[in-house]
Amino acid sequence: MKLYDWDFAPNCRRVRMYMYEKGIELPKKDVITPEIKLNDGYADYYPHYMVPMLELDDGTQIGEALSIWIYLEEKYPTPPLMGVHPVEKAMISAWERRAYDEGIVGHAEIFRNSHPNFVDRGLPGHRLKIEQIPALIERGKHRVTHYYEKLEKQLATNNFVVGDRFSVADINAVIVVDFGLALEMPVPDIYPNIQSYYDRLKDRPSVKRSMTKHMPDGTPIPQAA
Amino acid sequence: MKLYDWDFAPNCRRVRMYMYEKGIELPKKDVITPEIKLNDGYADYYPHYMVPMLELDDGTQIGEALSIWIYLEEKYPTPPLMGVHPVEKAMISAWERRAYDEGIVGHAEIFRNSHPNFVDRGLPGHRLKIEQIPALIERGKHRVTHYYEKLEKQLATNNFVVGDRFSVADINAVIVVDFGLALEMPVPDIYPNIQSYYDRLKDRPSVKRSMTKHMPDGTPIPQAA
Repeated sequence: MKLYDWDFAPNCRRVRMYMYEKGIELPKKDVITPEIKLNDGYADYYPHYMVPMLELDDGTQIGEALSIWIYLEEKYPTPPLMGVHPVEKAMISAWERRAYDEGIVGHAEIFRNSHPNFVDRGLPGHRLKIEQIPALIERGKHRVTHYYEKLEKQLATNNFVVGDRFSVADINAVIVVDFGLALEMPVPDIYPNIQSYYDRLKDRPSVKRSMTKHMPDGTPIPQAA
Repeated sequence: MKLYDWDFAPNCRRVRMYMYEKGIELPKKDVITPEIKLNDGYADYYPHYMVPMLELDDGTQIGEALSIWIYLEEKYPTPPLMGVHPVEKAMISAWERRAYDEGIVGHAEIFRNSHPNFVDRGLPGHRLKIEQIPALIERGKHRVTHYYEKLEKQLATNNFVVGDRFSVADINAVIVVDFGLALEMPVPDIYPNIQSYYDRLKDRPSVKRSMTKHMPDGTPIPQAA
């Protein structure tokens, strides 16, 4: 197997942190050019033209971080990161989805619609020019706030996002917070439960090792130091 | 169990079509007011304030269509709709995600950012006012086109989206096409594989029975007749 990866991409980090939690070591191939674009060869090689992508030894290409997790969870069930019992599986999925649709997508909207390197690249995976929409910066902030409000309440009675065990719902939660730090938008003080949760998790080996080191333009990210 | 539902919502239809494929019959509760808003009692009852939501007999509330599928797939494994083998599970998930992020979200962006009933409700699940962003109409069209281009190629060699069996990847694909029909944006003629695929699936019992009957303002939807 081989993982097609990009250090900065939060969706790639979802897969890296998952692998390190499981103790899975895979060759990784970074497919980003110095101009911070997926290289042309990759675009022709993988028609969905996004990262992460897991390539199996028979050439099968699995895209989408969630789908890569699903494959790896079948192959490496221990420790379980997507739940064991039906209700647990469903609740982990629901919190993973909220973190994604609200927290990760919210920060991604802020980032892609404001960063000078992403002019005309408002959506991932497109070869067409997609203009930035500055109004999405404000909307992205609403999305993130919405997630933090829910997460703050959830963490009042849970050590991890769902129950007593680290799961993919935690992977996404940590990535939402770190994406915010990279954008200089730390968790507001009105969310002490999220702050203490993050402080407990930030030195976890999988969290540290999967950390994004640089912004797309090469600027180091402070908390990754 | 009880399903909290709204006839028009594509995410609710994802659950209804799934249930009918499995032969699961559940009581449904429609929580939309005549003003096409989630009713206030529901907002207090379910803090995530979205539909669909599956409530278990012990009061557990499972939100997010994907998470409801995950729960039901464990409880009612036959016929499998999320794959059986690891690669099949991953590929169904990946196509389900593309249909969601590009096709369903694309049409939802067009709809929520243009429909007069959704002024100040640009995002679901928020009680705050979220302004419409008209530029998302064009971007939503790009998203849908992107999905259709991929799907057209995939259907050149597959009877269903993944392999030879109906799955949740097909549920989402049919819903993308029907959402487009409701918005008077049918599948363009340049995608004959999608058109013949849809023609084969549109009379499937689960597809017909789960069909949305009316637009949010009460206007009947032609293809639902």
